[in-house]
Amino acid sequence: MMNEQAPTDRLDRVIVPIRVRYAECDPMQIAHHASYPVWMEIARTELLRAQGANYRDCEASGVFFAVARMNIRYKRPARYDDELDLEVIGLPCEGVKVEHRYRLKRGKELLMTADTTIVCITGEGKAVPVPEGLLP
Amino acid sequence: MMNEQAPTDRLDRVIVPIRVRYAECDPMQIAHHASYPVWMEIARTELLRAQGANYRDCEASGVFFAVARMNIRYKRPARYDDELDLEVIGLPCEGVKVEHRYRLKRGKELLMTADTTIVCITGEGKAVPVPEGLLP
Amino acid sequence: MMNEQAPTDRLDRVIVPIRVRYAECDPMQIAHHASYPVWMEIARTELLRAQGANYRDCEASGVFFAVARMNIRYKRPARYDDELDLEVIGLPCEGVKVEHRYRLKRGKELLMTADTTIVCITGEGKAVPVPEGLLP
Amino acid sequence: MMNEQAPTDRLDRVIVPIRVRYAECDPMQIAHHASYPVWMEIARTELLRAQGANYRDCEASGVFFAVARMNIRYKRPARYDDELDLEVIGLPCEGVKVEHRYRLKRGKELLMTADTTIVCITGEGKAVPVPEGLLP
Repeated sequence: MMNEQAPTDRLDRVIVPIRVRYAECDPMQIAHHASYPVWMEIARTELLRAQGANYRDCEASGVFFAVARMNIRYKRPARYDDELDLEVIGLPCEGVKVEHRYRLKRGKELLMTADTTIVCITGEGKAVPVPEGLLP
Repeated sequence: MMNEQAPTDRLDRVIVPIRVRYAECDPMQIAHHASYPVWMEIARTELLRAQGANYRDCEASGVFFAVARMNIRYKRPARYDDELDLEVIGLPCEGVKVEHRYRLKRGKELLMTADTTIVCITGEGKAVPVPEGLLP
Repeated sequence: MMNEQAPTDRLDRVIVPIRVRYAECDPMQIAHHASYPVWMEIARTELLRAQGANYRDCEASGVFFAVARMNIRYKRPARYDDELDLEVIGLPCEGVKVEHRYRLKRGKELLMTADTTIVCITGEGKAVPVPEGLLP
Repeated sequence: MMNEQAPTDRLDRVIVPIRVRYAECDPMQIAHHASYPVWMEIARTELLRAQGANYRDCEASGVFFAVARMNIRYKRPARYDDELDLEVIGLPCEGVKVEHRYRLKRGKELLMTADTTIVCITGEGKAVPVPEGLLP
């Protein structure tokens, strides 16, 4: 699927390494399911950075990204100290939203797929168009 | 929707109070989106308890519930110290799965809706039928 | 020790119920040690509330409490779904600081003792005297 | 201080890079104080790894490390996306305990110092001597 993306002059995809922390695991001896959204947020931060932007600067300039929707399918468990690869792809959709898709792997094994919708808002919570420089 | 549920002799729905913790909020001054799955897990624990079961005993007897799918729609932000009501409804589906639906409110204001699929597994990760006594 | 406090017309001590969440536990099947500071923060929030103040209002008025020091002694493990009692005592010390002492119990069993120093600061991080109404 | 350590043929000190996550920060716009123990745990994992051991294998072999005491002094705040260096030093003390000391820096700026005591236990919680290969 990813290879079908038309070539662009901007990065719209990165793969981020994740090492599973002990504190992220639960009594079932696996990464707790609420740890994954935190990893997905790291991946979005790194995607922005790869595009030459910086989410800290965004917030400083009054532009915030709020998660409006999140859909996660857990396929196989991740364990403490596992080294994972989290791929994120950004897809602009409408003017004020960005959609991201995620695939988490341990080697060739697919552990999770997910997708989120982020809305661009002001500090007061008003939806605004995603700034040009931040579009994936 | 909830009122359309056929009457049963078992509780299939509870409303759990949630007080938003400071540590659950982020620099955007709102509850971080990864806090919600933790609250939803608390609601499932309390639903089981209302049904006379206990998830701690389940695990002690070798029955675990793994989250296989999670879908969350964030509608309005929750803030530090907010008092929220989280409603959860359990719906048996197939033999090894339970589906839950959630609605988070602050007073009459709807903040979030969500649904999850839980799979009943052994300690070795093998899917097994949900024990009779634990069916919602 | 607590009984030696001189009587005052203000509450300087509360006991807060804590139910251990599944997500707060780790693969050792016990509450992770980083969960305790979160519970201690809840206790400070409730101590303020018992005194008629509200930390959310404090922040809205530009007064913040930053943790400057934390010392925790873990004596016995807490487990998922345990019902605990967390006692907190507030002790004013110098003008810009408040010290708190904590005792966490499961029934009569002492699980943890701790103490923290909180510094009162402005939004810019400058230490300021603790407002009169907020002194324990 | 660190330079005064007598030379040994084993690593007793590592410096671990920490990138502050968005989810680790709070409404005060700084890393929440409960995030630091999680980073300190990562540093202990990496110290073990640098020594040729692996905490995951330890647990698999029935040896667990429980935190018995933690003392943290927060000197300056860390912020979202900051790149920090967390130094950890391991010091054997008595037979069943290991003490660690920590210093967190952003460039040359010291943000935090801390020390912890870890007790080596069995799965049943009984204190046992630290295995030879795991002594710092």
